[in-house]
Amino acid sequence: MSRFSISLRVRYAETDSMRVAYHGSYFTWYEVARTELIRHLGYPYQKIENEGIFMPVIDAHCSYIQPVRYDEEFTVGTYIRKIQGVRVEIAYELKRSGQLCAEGYTIHAFMNREGKPVRPPEEFLSHLKKGLA
Amino acid sequence: MSRFSISLRVRYAETDSMRVAYHGSYFTWYEVARTELIRHLGYPYQKIENEGIFMPVIDAHCSYIQPVRYDEEFTVGTYIRKIQGVRVEIAYELKRSGQLCAEGYTIHAFMNREGKPVRPPEEFLSHLKKGLA
Amino acid sequence: MSRFSISLRVRYAETDSMRVAYHGSYFTWYEVARTELIRHLGYPYQKIENEGIFMPVIDAHCSYIQPVRYDEEFTVGTYIRKIQGVRVEIAYELKRSGQLCAEGYTIHAFMNREGKPVRPPEEFLSHLKKGLA
Amino acid sequence: MSRFSISLRVRYAETDSMRVAYHGSYFTWYEVARTELIRHLGYPYQKIENEGIFMPVIDAHCSYIQPVRYDEEFTVGTYIRKIQGVRVEIAYELKRSGQLCAEGYTIHAFMNREGKPVRPPEEFLSHLKKGLA
Repeated sequence: MSRFSISLRVRYAETDSMRVAYHGSYFTWYEVARTELIRHLGYPYQKIENEGIFMPVIDAHCSYIQPVRYDEEFTVGTYIRKIQGVRVEIAYELKRSGQLCAEGYTIHAFMNREGKPVRPPEEFLSHLKKGLA
Repeated sequence: MSRFSISLRVRYAETDSMRVAYHGSYFTWYEVARTELIRHLGYPYQKIENEGIFMPVIDAHCSYIQPVRYDEEFTVGTYIRKIQGVRVEIAYELKRSGQLCAEGYTIHAFMNREGKPVRPPEEFLSHLKKGLA
Repeated sequence: MSRFSISLRVRYAETDSMRVAYHGSYFTWYEVARTELIRHLGYPYQKIENEGIFMPVIDAHCSYIQPVRYDEEFTVGTYIRKIQGVRVEIAYELKRSGQLCAEGYTIHAFMNREGKPVRPPEEFLSHLKKGLA
Repeated sequence: MSRFSISLRVRYAETDSMRVAYHGSYFTWYEVARTELIRHLGYPYQKIENEGIFMPVIDAHCSYIQPVRYDEEFTVGTYIRKIQGVRVEIAYELKRSGQLCAEGYTIHAFMNREGKPVRPPEEFLSHLKKGLA
């Protein structure tokens, strides 16, 4: 199984009074990893939005194992876990120096500009399928 | 079962290019609801932190059912779902005009300033128990 | 001079590793105060957006005098300082227990959906004028 | 004059209902640029914080010239504009494809863990001075 991975650093804005990254920040990092994964698969998310198709998050989960702190560098590994009908599940693993710090997933639906569920173009789906672990 | 509930409005900062609230914003709203629930139970979270005890999120989940948009008013109902050893599970329901728009939960551990797991003071736990649904 | 004022609390998400509110959070609070001021003046911002007119921020400033911390309650006093052509300047004062903690302003232009500068409807302007200090 | 510059992309979380980056997001980008500038000058900000010295923002300003949108790549050029007593002024220029989209500055004081103003170590200051334009 090949996984795509990006590298990020904790911004000051993403920390909180506990002197660690705020738990909500992880979902933004997962978003960045997802955007780069989809670009990497050859069909940037921006392109599908330009065609009037959106991939809203309909389910999100994160388990926090070890905190990450300001300015620490970490990686987010990500892959497509499942494509079922008009739903796509994407998984994430956040590591610092190889140690697992958090893991999570998001589930996405496809909808048009009016918010109605739609089937995504076959070409986009076939690109996503390349990201299946 | 009695539930505690707060009322909020979607801030512009909390929206995104899909013209709806960003999925990560919900975890901040759950945090606000949790803070107010704990205050309502009689032992403000700030007080327990002043005693050197923190309640980091170790697990977070959200299901998104209907989007909420800029300036829309909504409520977040919240209650303590489970207290097990040093873990507390808190549940959330987000509604707009009575319609369920999202639901989720967070699980919290107790730790001291050094990040070591600790038992919270009995008095704090007994306040939390009043919030069990 | 009558000033409009709202009351808020610092969210955990809005704090940072310095154990105070992140400096960027203040601009979100100013946005909340602005939204409520405009609603209070009788022509909610959402209404003008529904008519296809937007008020992007073209200039923003904040001076930080005293930090505010997690869960602290504070007020944001706000008023319209200037209306000049298609520009509106709005001022903000953030106080905790009557003590000035920060002050700032934002300058807004009016534009249509295509991002072109436009004159706002006279009715909206006349509502804004009621907020001039 | 030599300027240090970083490259970033607009995250979905950083956009708003106007389908452009939220004005508050720029201050976070300036923070990222500042962190990297200071690291580049040879004395990472995290190191000075480990020595018990903090650089809170006491003044922040941004002018918005052209909006940036989701997934667009941009650069933030940054340099130290002034060092005066215990105050440091840092300037920023945000460009997309060479075009100026925003500019701003932040002014920082030095304080200790107790929030009292202090002189920073001479070694840190001499590193910052290398960043003077």
